Amino acid sequence: MQAFQLVEWQQPPVLRDVPVPEPGPGEVLVKVGGAGACHSDLHLMEWPAGFLPYELPFTLGHENAGWIEALGPGVKGWEVGEAVAVYGPWGCGRCRPCRTGLETLCERAAQLGAAGGGLGRNGGMAEYMLVPDPRLLVPLGDLDPRDAAPLSDAALTPYHAIKLALHQLVPGTSAVVIGVGGLGHMAVQILRALTPARVIATDVDAAKLALAVDVGADHAIEAGEDAAAEIRELTGGIGATLVLDCVGSNSTLTLDTQVVAKGGAVMVVGVAGGTLEYRFNTLPSDASLTHPYWGSIVELGEVLELARAGRITPHAERFPLERVADAYERMQSGTLSGRAVITPHG
Amino acid sequence: MQAFQLVEWQQPPVLRDVPVPEPGPGEVLVKVGGAGACHSDLHLMEWPAGFLPYELPFTLGHENAGWIEALGPGVKGWEVGEAVAVYGPWGCGRCRPCRTGLETLCERAAQLGAAGGGLGRNGGMAEYMLVPDPRLLVPLGDLDPRDAAPLSDAALTPYHAIKLALHQLVPGTSAVVIGVGGLGHMAVQILRALTPARVIATDVDAAKLALAVDVGADHAIEAGEDAAAEIRELTGGIGATLVLDCVGSNSTLTLDTQVVAKGGAVMVVGVAGGTLEYRFNTLPSDASLTHPYWGSIVELGEVLELARAGRITPHAERFPLERVADAYERMQSGTLSGRAVITPHG
Amino acid sequence: MQAFQLVEWQQPPVLRDVPVPEPGPGEVLVKVGGAGACHSDLHLMEWPAGFLPYELPFTLGHENAGWIEALGPGVKGWEVGEAVAVYGPWGCGRCRPCRTGLETLCERAAQLGAAGGGLGRNGGMAEYMLVPDPRLLVPLGDLDPRDAAPLSDAALTPYHAIKLALHQLVPGTSAVVIGVGGLGHMAVQILRALTPARVIATDVDAAKLALAVDVGADHAIEAGEDAAAEIRELTGGIGATLVLDCVGSNSTLTLDTQVVAKGGAVMVVGVAGGTLEYRFNTLPSDASLTHPYWGSIVELGEVLELARAGRITPHAERFPLERVADAYERMQSGTLSGRAVITPHG
Amino acid sequence: MQAFQLVEWQQPPVLRDVPVPEPGPGEVLVKVGGAGACHSDLHLMEWPAGFLPYELPFTLGHENAGWIEALGPGVKGWEVGEAVAVYGPWGCGRCRPCRTGLETLCERAAQLGAAGGGLGRNGGMAEYMLVPDPRLLVPLGDLDPRDAAPLSDAALTPYHAIKLALHQLVPGTSAVVIGVGGLGHMAVQILRALTPARVIATDVDAAKLALAVDVGADHAIEAGEDAAAEIRELTGGIGATLVLDCVGSNSTLTLDTQVVAKGGAVMVVGVAGGTLEYRFNTLPSDASLTHPYWGSIVELGEVLELARAGRITPHAERFPLERVADAYERMQSGTLSGRAVITPHG
Repeated sequence: MQAFQLVEWQQPPVLRDVPVPEPGPGEVLVKVGGAGACHSDLHLMEWPAGFLPYELPFTLGHENAGWIEALGPGVKGWEVGEAVAVYGPWGCGRCRPCRTGLETLCERAAQLGAAGGGLGRNGGMAEYMLVPDPRLLVPLGDLDPRDAAPLSDAALTPYHAIKLALHQLVPGTSAVVIGVGGLGHMAVQILRALTPARVIATDVDAAKLALAVDVGADHAIEAGEDAAAEIRELTGGIGATLVLDCVGSNSTLTLDTQVVAKGGAVMVVGVAGGTLEYRFNTLPSDASLTHPYWGSIVELGEVLELARAGRITPHAERFPLERVADAYERMQSGTLSGRAVITPHG
Repeated sequence: MQAFQLVEWQQPPVLRDVPVPEPGPGEVLVKVGGAGACHSDLHLMEWPAGFLPYELPFTLGHENAGWIEALGPGVKGWEVGEAVAVYGPWGCGRCRPCRTGLETLCERAAQLGAAGGGLGRNGGMAEYMLVPDPRLLVPLGDLDPRDAAPLSDAALTPYHAIKLALHQLVPGTSAVVIGVGGLGHMAVQILRALTPARVIATDVDAAKLALAVDVGADHAIEAGEDAAAEIRELTGGIGATLVLDCVGSNSTLTLDTQVVAKGGAVMVVGVAGGTLEYRFNTLPSDASLTHPYWGSIVELGEVLELARAGRITPHAERFPLERVADAYERMQSGTLSGRAVITPHG
Repeated sequence: MQAFQLVEWQQPPVLRDVPVPEPGPGEVLVKVGGAGACHSDLHLMEWPAGFLPYELPFTLGHENAGWIEALGPGVKGWEVGEAVAVYGPWGCGRCRPCRTGLETLCERAAQLGAAGGGLGRNGGMAEYMLVPDPRLLVPLGDLDPRDAAPLSDAALTPYHAIKLALHQLVPGTSAVVIGVGGLGHMAVQILRALTPARVIATDVDAAKLALAVDVGADHAIEAGEDAAAEIRELTGGIGATLVLDCVGSNSTLTLDTQVVAKGGAVMVVGVAGGTLEYRFNTLPSDASLTHPYWGSIVELGEVLELARAGRITPHAERFPLERVADAYERMQSGTLSGRAVITPHG
Repeated sequence: MQAFQLVEWQQPPVLRDVPVPEPGPGEVLVKVGGAGACHSDLHLMEWPAGFLPYELPFTLGHENAGWIEALGPGVKGWEVGEAVAVYGPWGCGRCRPCRTGLETLCERAAQLGAAGGGLGRNGGMAEYMLVPDPRLLVPLGDLDPRDAAPLSDAALTPYHAIKLALHQLVPGTSAVVIGVGGLGHMAVQILRALTPARVIATDVDAAKLALAVDVGADHAIEAGEDAAAEIRELTGGIGATLVLDCVGSNSTLTLDTQVVAKGGAVMVVGVAGGTLEYRFNTLPSDASLTHPYWGSIVELGEVLELARAGRITPHAERFPLERVADAYERMQSGTLSGRAVITPHG
């Protein structure tokens, strides 16, 4: 079969012919319906050898969904043909966080040598993908795997961040979403579905602000030097209980600290690499600053429920496997509309 | 090997010779160190055929710990010889509650035909026990499996009930433990380890009240018609934020409603079969009534941490496998001191 | 001024001429905009002398909103003319629950001799009402006091009950509202505004089922012997995570136990006086049964935010003060459409 | 009476003769039993005119307890002679956080012109202190006001920080206390009373490490370049679920980020003025960084309950009012043993 693999560090990945894997005991073979292309893959390709503990080559693609093609010996409770999402972060499965489905916080991560399929182990940019344990599968029901694939990261990441602050988002509070791209436009929809909070979106791009309003934002504010003052005014001078920063640049980190309310939460999920000079009064009293990472498998199940109920809809563009390199090029050049999803079987 | 099996409904279980099981793909064979004998087994033996969905015969024993003897094909991340507790409630492993480790609330329980090892499937009252999935194992570290076995039910059950109310047990509140037997004497220790609450124990038996004080209760109240008034006085007229009823008789259910505070929680874990005529003002405003069932595998890990740190200690009496029938007789006649643990390998 | 007072137990209340009160130090005089008439007032009128600790006479009306008419000496931070809701349950103000705004659970309630304005002390069915402490006021902003008055009970009561279970109402779960009357039709709207849960309403009356769908229920089920089976089917056999029983009769209490999920919550806010024979397996594992009472002043603020944002709208019929007796008659005969609100100043 | 007042910015405060205040409507006069001297007062004295919005002069002292001397008109529910603590942060009393007792997060703080008694309004370093509202009092029961005074800040501040992370401090987790001074030695005791977590203390001073062990720390680690490695080893490589930094210097902020676990919380309550260059991977995944400020009045009540139950004991040295300047000098020179408490009535 064809697989899009990282073969050498700091070299472009290539489409190669590899054997279709056979599921061993306790493993599951998934026929890939959709594999989302993620900005973080671009970073992955750029690291020098030795920076990450991953062994090469491996197939890219960590946002995957498809159909069960074959069950290895000993796998019970799943059916061939069942549509499934593949939970992306693969932990040890036996430490405390893994037991609760939050494998992102695996206590043995350093010993595993890989973070998941597409992240050190073979991922979903291929016709078939081997999943090492059925605990990593979530049933899709009647969702199309090509629609579901990007939900497993682009929706799960903001969903997890929002859940961490959800108990505070009572009526009368506000949530600010900074950056209305792949994660941000999902964040607006998730906030709308889960909370009664006033949703304020901000971006540099007018088209993205229009999209924010389309998918449910109460207010869309152009990024720039007045944004902080406008947001504070919209919140009656109190600030936002949740600031979800989907950019993470120097300027958005500063904005985060200017608009968060006392006791509120700044959640930075964007990886633009900004820095912040942090000191005693950088944040208001009791406000917290966190870099949440991805989400739990239980939360992935909740995200899929929202999608099945029509409460959230990802925007995505589909590419056949042979055009996967184009997809990344389009992402790099900023000409994608929504997420790129590779669909190896059409 | 020898195994203590229920062969016919409403007949005493018998010690029989059965083959040592071989672990198939994804399964684990455990050499049993200790298997606790539980009051609920006595009920199990009494049901008429057809009442429970279990197929006979099966080996009794649902509180188990031991050492990994063999790993079936495909089992990774565990070592032969490792000491483990076996989590007792076996769910489907893929529904939402199972994903969080709370297999007691499995959404597919009705389809499974058994509730766990010793509860429809072969349990731990044998030299070896087959565990169908390593997700059901919890590492013991340096705890002796013979000490750990009863913790997996007699401590886990009150631990789970206490966790449900833990956020309310702030300084100045009170917790009442009704019945200081196998579960109750663990409950007092757990409350002491986890909370600053005033702990009040009540029982009909003076020796058990002495034990309660020994293991950390602030007050021990003789059960009887003055108990409610005494408890209300000890709580400044406010009542108890948690009432943990380890008996569940008509009279303790009534006591529960008399001593719980507004907004408090009554947790009934005793199965004496009492009834309560429930109406609008049976409980104070905002107070809740719950029958918690066992606990989660994550909580079992926490219970084992408490034991390793010396914060809780179960009282138990050990019996070799050939004397297992005596253990149940002693339990039935009330002459056991603490839990009975069967130790097939001495 | 005119005031509708309970003068003798088991006699109809009467409209009487009484002096306009003067606010003493720390007190506030409110010009009544709206005073909701509540079913519980009908019960109040029926009690024999001595049953309740209240001294007669007192003015009825415990769901009140209006405008600040005068501030007693020492009252700071409030303005004459400001529109306010009056929080109904009046506690001691210094015990732990009162400190958090949950005066319904006041630890000194038994010593206070009254539960609030209209409940032992003069309430809002008069031209003016004396509020003993400004802590009992919540600003209305631009809400009309005549609309806001019934929110302070008919919306606050289900809001509080829903908040107690809110953390469990994740995507994919269900909430059942039993009885779509004054509280139930608010409950449907509140669930819609706060949660992604599937909302199922049930009632005996087809018009009320239509109303339920109108205000946001996903499913409306006719009460009757098939209701439990239909609800279980709608929830995929799992049951509802929240059952909010706004009736409280024998048959709805039974229905509650049949449709609640394992680990779910039954909240009974209806006071039809039903009873339930409660025993070990009456409720599924870990499910709880609670009679929540009214709500906190913080929650009242949140309810008013929802109303200001247009997320909840009470249905009400207005009556001038001189027609207050008619309002209760109409309530008794079941011919009211929505809540009755007395509007002493038109 | 004598009062220790800040009369001019950047000048030492002076003991002056001022009239005993008369409580107006809604106010309470407290005879001061104890007034704690706090490090933050030293900072207060150093600010240039115009930096803080406070008007001069005012009496210092924001950690106060005493006895009710007189009730202004309209104050109900309190008795002359009752021993009380004075809650220090004074908010507007009507915004959402104030309603829950968390006046530290008052939404109108900027309009109030003062943060509390001793912080812009007259505090407790005088024979009598005027409290503007009885909502700011907490009953002491049989606690001595001279012992209770420092609890209202030196214990309340770490208590509040610990409460924010309490739900995560399950058995098997660790909490690190950095700096075992006035706040840190209370933090160790509070952690011991509220949680089963392993408590690790670190300090530069061997005497303080000995004190930490005395009051309940499991491990005491000398600050320095090996501290991070030692702490990570004590936590099995996982890190600490709570890092409570009572110093707040450059080096402790760095240590915070090195020893906090994934998903854990760094709470900085020390105000040494350090800075941290914050970027994407400064903290582990899902870990949060917060500067908690003081605590809520409900939490103050809980702190006093712990003290009454003997679970926490502050170390303090008493000074008569005429020696108040000495107390600050001793604090500045680091020769105090524990907190300094001014006791105007002996």
